Amino acid sequence: MKIVIAPDKFKGSLTAPEAARAIEQGVLRCNPEAATVLVPVADGGEGTLDSLIAATGGTSVPVRVTGPLGEPVEAAYGITGDGRTAVIEMARASGLLLVPPARRDPLRTTTYGTGELIRHALDAGCRSFILALGGSATNDGGAGMLEALGMRLTDRDGRKIGPGGGEIGRIANVDASGFDPRIAESSFVIASDVTNPFIGAEGASRVFGPQKGADADKVERLEEAMASWAGRMEEATGVRVRDMPGAGAAGGLGGALLAFFPAVMRRGIDVVAACCRLREKLQGADLVLTGEGAIDGQTAGGKAPLGVAEEARRLGIPVIALAGSVGAGAGKLNDLGFASIHSIVNGPMTLEEAVGRAAELLELAAEQAVRAFNAGRRR
Amino acid sequence: MKIVIAPDKFKGSLTAPEAARAIEQGVLRCNPEAATVLVPVADGGEGTLDSLIAATGGTSVPVRVTGPLGEPVEAAYGITGDGRTAVIEMARASGLLLVPPARRDPLRTTTYGTGELIRHALDAGCRSFILALGGSATNDGGAGMLEALGMRLTDRDGRKIGPGGGEIGRIANVDASGFDPRIAESSFVIASDVTNPFIGAEGASRVFGPQKGADADKVERLEEAMASWAGRMEEATGVRVRDMPGAGAAGGLGGALLAFFPAVMRRGIDVVAACCRLREKLQGADLVLTGEGAIDGQTAGGKAPLGVAEEARRLGIPVIALAGSVGAGAGKLNDLGFASIHSIVNGPMTLEEAVGRAAELLELAAEQAVRAFNAGRRR
Repeated sequence: MKIVIAPDKFKGSLTAPEAARAIEQGVLRCNPEAATVLVPVADGGEGTLDSLIAATGGTSVPVRVTGPLGEPVEAAYGITGDGRTAVIEMARASGLLLVPPARRDPLRTTTYGTGELIRHALDAGCRSFILALGGSATNDGGAGMLEALGMRLTDRDGRKIGPGGGEIGRIANVDASGFDPRIAESSFVIASDVTNPFIGAEGASRVFGPQKGADADKVERLEEAMASWAGRMEEATGVRVRDMPGAGAAGGLGGALLAFFPAVMRRGIDVVAACCRLREKLQGADLVLTGEGAIDGQTAGGKAPLGVAEEARRLGIPVIALAGSVGAGAGKLNDLGFASIHSIVNGPMTLEEAVGRAAELLELAAEQAVRAFNAGRRR
Repeated sequence: MKIVIAPDKFKGSLTAPEAARAIEQGVLRCNPEAATVLVPVADGGEGTLDSLIAATGGTSVPVRVTGPLGEPVEAAYGITGDGRTAVIEMARASGLLLVPPARRDPLRTTTYGTGELIRHALDAGCRSFILALGGSATNDGGAGMLEALGMRLTDRDGRKIGPGGGEIGRIANVDASGFDPRIAESSFVIASDVTNPFIGAEGASRVFGPQKGADADKVERLEEAMASWAGRMEEATGVRVRDMPGAGAAGGLGGALLAFFPAVMRRGIDVVAACCRLREKLQGADLVLTGEGAIDGQTAGGKAPLGVAEEARRLGIPVIALAGSVGAGAGKLNDLGFASIHSIVNGPMTLEEAVGRAAELLELAAEQAVRAFNAGRRR
């Protein structure tokens, strides 16, 4: 029996690779003869880098770059097992978690460090890129990232603009003459589930600005600046990002990538699945096990497991999901492709206990779920 | 698909019939075409009466009898669906829960009320009896029960003894001339998992006396009295209860039944299974669902589910167990016949929440477990 084990992380307790190993332990206790294939996945947000490194046998490359507020941060990007594809989580260089809550201010935060990560990977020979856009601290329309790669953004007096979303409204000229020419020779796949446009009521500033530290006044300043910058980008590239779905991802970094890069944007789990060669690994499988910290029918939780389930369903392979907590609407998820969904919690306990015992509980739950599946097989 | 649903109670939250209905709801959500057969079970302890009434379509007969301390109590016994078999839980008339903790004293408590229940059932025409012995408040060696049925127990001066374990050491004569003759025409099946003998280090007084309110001194007084009474019983019947396994059940009520009644003692779940015609109902089933409040490998918990699993295993039918809490040693239980064991708890929560939501959680867990089974069936 071939069993593919493709969980996302259990947030706060297990990384996706750790979760996959725990599930495998449980599977092998009841099906010691099973051929297990571990494919830790991610949804394009936090953990994507680790999952893709683990799933492809890749390596992590540490790099010191410019943080969201200009200070140096120890970031990293990944190179997948084939040695050609760079995996860049923008949050490692420009993420909200790098900024203490009191200092969060999207008028000032920059994506410059994300550009530095891209440049480092280009220097390392990478020409294929996966960019994960979740968790940004920024609302600079990708201006910092462009500058780090040689784009010259100047005001009407010809002076370079400063960092942050508060400056991009002053951009009068976009000079691409120094823009890294290796970018045009490369391909970029943007992993993002955000479908918001660059500006407007559903745009980056108004929807995501507040959670990055902008009050109502700052949100409107950001919106105005982003609208101006959208105009300059359109003049420079012909790409109309202002109402383009996804251009609002990561404070408009998505828009800059779509305008200036040979880039396509795809759903996070689909990018991860493709990179992990999930479809290929599913061939001939009898069962797929997936999971995530929390799965329910209403929230965005369970995005990666759902992607796994969709892929497996196309091949007619049943999918069993395991979660720390299974919320309301499990029935809806059954309709979406999960054969069954089980909590790893095996009795009344606190969140702290469940988190602390997550590996053990996941192993036990995986074993029992596969045993139920086995019981059906033998009928 | 035929699915047999045979849970015990979920103590503190659901009776066995309630648990069976909740599981059925979950099953029918994923397998609306399934033929479900509900067989709520019990282990011979608390809940046995309700389960047997529910499983056989029987009736409950309320009777006012003498309580453990001589006061009247509102008890009840059951008559199974065939109208011939009485089900008597001794705890309804003579149980520990009928005595406030401060008044618990096995020197005084009597099984007289249990004898009254038997007499009432004889009057109602019953000649087949199931006696569940769990939960007694008494240590009177069944003397009170015998007196209620016409046995005359007197001291060396020919005077009737008083009630309670403190009096039985004074019994000098056993006069069976007034003993209800219908007892000899009847059959008695004693449901009990207790294997302790009447007296000795493993006997009723020393093992169970303390939990019924006897201190060390009272335990030894009870032990002496029981030893004397065992001698009188042996003289009267030839039955040597002193070291007979099971004679120590219910403070020696088991011994009196084995000595004076046409009685056999069997494991609680086996008596319940036979009465419910579990084996017959399992014929042709594709799956059995069972469950209990707590299941683990170390404790006596899960006795009834284990009995269900043993019966199903003989017929080659897989058994899935559901429990409020699944303790350590689940793997051992898999070896004993459970295909899989799942907790109904679907995320971190308190015991109070799990108890309060037990029906809903059991329904959800049953659905998902059967879905996992279904997924295997379709492979």
